[in-house]
Amino acid sequence: MMEKRKKFILPEAEIPTQWYNVTAEMKNKPQPMINPQTKEPLKAEDLYPLFAEELSRQEMNQTDAWIDIPEEVREKYKIYRPSPLVRATGLEKALGTPAHIYFKNESVSPVGSHKLNSALPQAYYNKIEGITNITTETGAGQWGTALAFAAKAFDLELAVYMVKISYEQKPYRRSLMQTWGAQVIPSPSMSTKAGRKIITEHPNYQGSLGTAISEAIELAMQTPNCKYTLGSVLNHVSLHQTIIGLEAEKQMAMADEYPDVVIGCFGGGSNFSGISFPFLRHNIAGKTNTRFIAAEPASCPKLTRGEFRYDFGDETGYTPLIPMYTLGHKFAPANIHAGGLRYHGAGSIVSQLLKDKLIEAVSIKQLETFEAGILFARTEGIIPAPESTHAIAVAVREALQAKEEGKEKVILFNLSGHGLVDMAAYDQYLAGDLSNHEVSDEDIRKFSAES
Amino acid sequence: MMEKRKKFILPEAEIPTQWYNVTAEMKNKPQPMINPQTKEPLKAEDLYPLFAEELSRQEMNQTDAWIDIPEEVREKYKIYRPSPLVRATGLEKALGTPAHIYFKNESVSPVGSHKLNSALPQAYYNKIEGITNITTETGAGQWGTALAFAAKAFDLELAVYMVKISYEQKPYRRSLMQTWGAQVIPSPSMSTKAGRKIITEHPNYQGSLGTAISEAIELAMQTPNCKYTLGSVLNHVSLHQTIIGLEAEKQMAMADEYPDVVIGCFGGGSNFSGISFPFLRHNIAGKTNTRFIAAEPASCPKLTRGEFRYDFGDETGYTPLIPMYTLGHKFAPANIHAGGLRYHGAGSIVSQLLKDKLIEAVSIKQLETFEAGILFARTEGIIPAPESTHAIAVAVREALQAKEEGKEKVILFNLSGHGLVDMAAYDQYLAGDLSNHEVSDEDIRKFSAES
Repeated sequence: MMEKRKKFILPEAEIPTQWYNVTAEMKNKPQPMINPQTKEPLKAEDLYPLFAEELSRQEMNQTDAWIDIPEEVREKYKIYRPSPLVRATGLEKALGTPAHIYFKNESVSPVGSHKLNSALPQAYYNKIEGITNITTETGAGQWGTALAFAAKAFDLELAVYMVKISYEQKPYRRSLMQTWGAQVIPSPSMSTKAGRKIITEHPNYQGSLGTAISEAIELAMQTPNCKYTLGSVLNHVSLHQTIIGLEAEKQMAMADEYPDVVIGCFGGGSNFSGISFPFLRHNIAGKTNTRFIAAEPASCPKLTRGEFRYDFGDETGYTPLIPMYTLGHKFAPANIHAGGLRYHGAGSIVSQLLKDKLIEAVSIKQLETFEAGILFARTEGIIPAPESTHAIAVAVREALQAKEEGKEKVILFNLSGHGLVDMAAYDQYLAGDLSNHEVSDEDIRKFSAES
Repeated sequence: MMEKRKKFILPEAEIPTQWYNVTAEMKNKPQPMINPQTKEPLKAEDLYPLFAEELSRQEMNQTDAWIDIPEEVREKYKIYRPSPLVRATGLEKALGTPAHIYFKNESVSPVGSHKLNSALPQAYYNKIEGITNITTETGAGQWGTALAFAAKAFDLELAVYMVKISYEQKPYRRSLMQTWGAQVIPSPSMSTKAGRKIITEHPNYQGSLGTAISEAIELAMQTPNCKYTLGSVLNHVSLHQTIIGLEAEKQMAMADEYPDVVIGCFGGGSNFSGISFPFLRHNIAGKTNTRFIAAEPASCPKLTRGEFRYDFGDETGYTPLIPMYTLGHKFAPANIHAGGLRYHGAGSIVSQLLKDKLIEAVSIKQLETFEAGILFARTEGIIPAPESTHAIAVAVREALQAKEEGKEKVILFNLSGHGLVDMAAYDQYLAGDLSNHEVSDEDIRKFSAES
């Protein structure tokens, strides 16, 4: 039975006016990205051909802790922000825990996830720099959906390369993008050299994020007034997502509490960074001692079982080299339902923070995540995205530990999105058709050697 | 390009504490329901075997204009209420209209529609009267989904008979109900006499709402501590839905405006009544002169082409006789995507109001509704449910008329739900595969004669 919930609603005027750039306050800065040809550290200008110039500068900015949110972006944020902070009293009761569990509900955005927080500024900066067309890739479709919305909001043409198997298996995500006016192309496609090469060599290839990135980059490079965009991993994406944690900080104050533990699911790092960094700054300042836990799938365990080194961001090696925890850029994760977490590496900020033990990581198997997701749906009423169930599963673990220890711990997690377009996954779970997909040590070694 | 939107957020404390019962203030009351055997007007007690007693009393109450919302229900409303009122500046600009267009966004509920507004009190009253099990039927799945959520919220067991063709074509709605813990049975089924009879006579029958109602009623009658529930048409459902209009009235005051026109899509009447009745009371009191427009599908035009008479609420004739605008209870509407609007009749209150010209009705063809839906998605960012696009289409018509007349009209419509679980419909529309399904005069005559 669902309990009385406590919802903390921030007035619209309290939407933050600046994003928080944690790199400015890190003692050990992330190492620079490196140009694979020259082996030189990358400068912002090196990224201008690919990304909007302001986004390139944000990517490299390690000095300004606060960066103004443009008024036009803040206006668009008002479509769905501030998002609610909710005390999960139903979940607490079901677990019989003395812990206080809070979640930040990013599922309320019209695209159903936090991805819009970065899609809007990325579209905006491209627009004001005179760009007319943007490209991107999408796997499960969350990022592509958000960018389709944002491109329409700022009147840009968008081409999305969608991994072919998702294009066929997730037609609803594709329809969402098309309804908002984006062009969606199954990848590999005949529209790029990279795509044609792969189709010719492997006629039945089902696509991969790596190929889709190559196609999106190639189209951007060969189209006038066109740039490329990315929805995770990069520093400027994490920057935009800090709006989550900055709002949550104000809302926790409304609840007169402060988190002992902050949890986010982890793919490339965007939503984990978003909920964590604003709270992390008080740890860095020596004022608090909060724990930050990244929840990754056991089938794609870069943080818990990968190594820290330079690696490419994409499968084919078109991007700069990024200092990251990685399973190797050739790593092929199992086809779990949390498609947004199927990425071989972690962003450079999160990687440095993990190396310095300023954050923690745990890996969770698929069945535990769905079990937690169903419990959450039945006690709090919201069907979580398969990605978000990873954060819920860790929150449940922490709450049960608090129960064992008899501690009144305060737990905060980010509900990064809802699962309404992922019901096929719940269907399979309820039918007993899902399995765990843990990676063998042998596979970890094999992919690492290949990459 | 999406314009700056104006969102009016009511504080949680402003959630209404009472529902509004328009029948108490109608000069011509709706005629009573009639027992088809005895031909006697129905009394509340006659409904006790079927519905919770308090719901039966609400159904018959024509004297109390205000009915208290139980505190426990109001607490559950806080999970998603108050819902936002939004000024659709993007849509206004795209239409180039001087009209001010507002919409009440009921799509923010965790089940994605307004149906939860009545599902919660229905579950609550059953619970406190000692009922342990409830049953219902669902066509497209919106009502079943809402009741699954509400049953879990108040710890009741729920069995939903889902029209077989929807059960197979809309597996996601089914999974939603199952995820919240409901039992979902495709109808016709072998679990009831009514179902067995139909399966035996027509082995390949794809089901209908009428059959599903029969099965749900039969199961409720034959199970101890079990009652039946319904999500539209009935007076107590409209009563609960008035929370929509009562909130909207406060929010329009925040915007310092008052609607000249109020629009809702129309199936059995629940969301149209909800947005309209609270404003209608000022017309009844002679203080305002607002127009109220019910937007029904051209394929199921009971308000615009049906006749006002006594008819059954279900296809097989198990219910009392209801005074209604009807196409005849045997009417078989085309399989349009707005499944929630495929009902042969209108509730008795709305029917009386239409007869007395206190409200208006228009019918809209399917292609016009999807055109309006896509325009709305691209200008306001929210993908509307196929049902809700009917209201949008009428709002667009009214806004264009205001443009022609150079009038600064204030238009308010109810966005009853989002379309995230209905993307297959948008897919078909974008692919040019949808058609209009208007009903011929001959069919209208034929079904009317049969019923």
